[in-house]
Amino acid sequence: MQKDKIFIGVIGGGDCSDDVYNLAEQVGERIAQAGAILVCGGLGGVMEAASKGAKKGGGTTIGILPGIDKSQANSYIDIPVATGLGEGRNLLVIRNSDVVIALPGKYGTLSEIGFCLALGKPMIGLSTWDVSQDMIKAEDAEDAVKMALTKVMKHG
Amino acid sequence: MQKDKIFIGVIGGGDCSDDVYNLAEQVGERIAQAGAILVCGGLGGVMEAASKGAKKGGGTTIGILPGIDKSQANSYIDIPVATGLGEGRNLLVIRNSDVVIALPGKYGTLSEIGFCLALGKPMIGLSTWDVSQDMIKAEDAEDAVKMALTKVMKHG
Amino acid sequence: MQKDKIFIGVIGGGDCSDDVYNLAEQVGERIAQAGAILVCGGLGGVMEAASKGAKKGGGTTIGILPGIDKSQANSYIDIPVATGLGEGRNLLVIRNSDVVIALPGKYGTLSEIGFCLALGKPMIGLSTWDVSQDMIKAEDAEDAVKMALTKVMKHG
Amino acid sequence: MQKDKIFIGVIGGGDCSDDVYNLAEQVGERIAQAGAILVCGGLGGVMEAASKGAKKGGGTTIGILPGIDKSQANSYIDIPVATGLGEGRNLLVIRNSDVVIALPGKYGTLSEIGFCLALGKPMIGLSTWDVSQDMIKAEDAEDAVKMALTKVMKHG
Repeated sequence: MQKDKIFIGVIGGGDCSDDVYNLAEQVGERIAQAGAILVCGGLGGVMEAASKGAKKGGGTTIGILPGIDKSQANSYIDIPVATGLGEGRNLLVIRNSDVVIALPGKYGTLSEIGFCLALGKPMIGLSTWDVSQDMIKAEDAEDAVKMALTKVMKHG
Repeated sequence: MQKDKIFIGVIGGGDCSDDVYNLAEQVGERIAQAGAILVCGGLGGVMEAASKGAKKGGGTTIGILPGIDKSQANSYIDIPVATGLGEGRNLLVIRNSDVVIALPGKYGTLSEIGFCLALGKPMIGLSTWDVSQDMIKAEDAEDAVKMALTKVMKHG
Repeated sequence: MQKDKIFIGVIGGGDCSDDVYNLAEQVGERIAQAGAILVCGGLGGVMEAASKGAKKGGGTTIGILPGIDKSQANSYIDIPVATGLGEGRNLLVIRNSDVVIALPGKYGTLSEIGFCLALGKPMIGLSTWDVSQDMIKAEDAEDAVKMALTKVMKHG
Repeated sequence: MQKDKIFIGVIGGGDCSDDVYNLAEQVGERIAQAGAILVCGGLGGVMEAASKGAKKGGGTTIGILPGIDKSQANSYIDIPVATGLGEGRNLLVIRNSDVVIALPGKYGTLSEIGFCLALGKPMIGLSTWDVSQDMIKAEDAEDAVKMALTKVMKHG
């Protein structure tokens, strides 16, 4: 049963630089290696990179999509969830994560950071919006996933 | 990749008789045996029975939940999706299904039948609300899953 | 304060015959004359007719829209509410109504009838889907609005 | 028809200091005096203060609520909209505003700022989260409402 695993959300821009793509891929791979499930928004950029990494690591990926068409999902998503909620799906990404790792992104990412902190879920920041001391800052992908696992064990 | 598989929704009451439970379990098992993924509302009754059957058949089960807590899902759900939308999750069950099989249920099931027909998705009825000629009536579990697969291939 | 008034939902097809349009207009007018607020889906057909009638009767009209653009609302809506939820707005129409009057409509209307009955809210049917004994059948517009007011007073 | 008016969103904390309450009340009053409609989250703190000010100024107030019970709305709301979407209603507050004025608030307010900027709607900040140069900073209530009106005219 996948449901007993830890669900780790990865958020970040739908477009991103190669450096950020690499970083997100490493985060995704380490999530899978830790036996956790990746939850993301299912589209491109950071979401695609994290999903690609998670599949490389042998994990399972859930993509919570804004539209009603599951074919919108990037190629590395195992389980697409078509919401038809538009940006409202951002909240569902957070609701389905036990802990969230935020990478660089724009205002959509900021809305997700807001929701995550509002719900009191642990949030790890990796070179992202620096808006709150409630966000734990990580140095690199390895550090971020380690912190996520530690936090969710304390929190859950 | 699970995303390339057919997603079959099963809808029906959160409480049900033993007969309906058995029927839903058979439907779930045949869905899994056909290599399709089961989508349901993730709770008890018909949803639980179909999920139980799908796991018996070696399949994957997605439970789209009304609340925000994935532990709400029945024991046979692999991928719980916590929506926090209340009854609004009924629409997401339909949106995530390529075809829907309706079993006996109450008014929540009726709302899902309405959505499914409104979206023009193929709908198979098995001893359920008899509200439309656009619903295809099946005789038993085997018949229902066969019809679902036939319809989704024509429709998709 | 409008909030202390009774909110009466009117549901029905986005396209309708002239006869149904006239009926919906009468329903809307009587809702306004009774001092209640009209809630509807904000678009054409039955929704437009009921809104037109309510404005003729000097009332207030709320249109809960599927899209994100409030200009989608028909000309008789005072307060458009842009949800961006697509058909998911059907549930919000019901949630915002103390009692619902259903006129002829297609599957979207059926989903709303399902939700209304699922939420246990009083539902008055006027020449619409005949799916449940929990729906109270009215003869004409006057009868429907009278029943709605009676029911909401008992229910509230 | 209210629908032809400008809809101005006011966002901010559900709890606030007396100073912020006074500021929000002034903002609400000036919105009403300008002939615009106030959209807010319908609860306490900044939302209540802005609604109170808008009613003092003779305006109309819409409260888009997280729950399913319209009685949740503060006493100054004319039109409560019960969404049942929880924090998801934050997005609906933004979707229903032509321009948004942000006052001090916590993480819920941050999620709304993120959504507003993501949707490319003009956003006026009044002593709130300083997260983006796309947010226009105002000095006081008068300034904020003036800027909001100017921006929405250019933007619309």
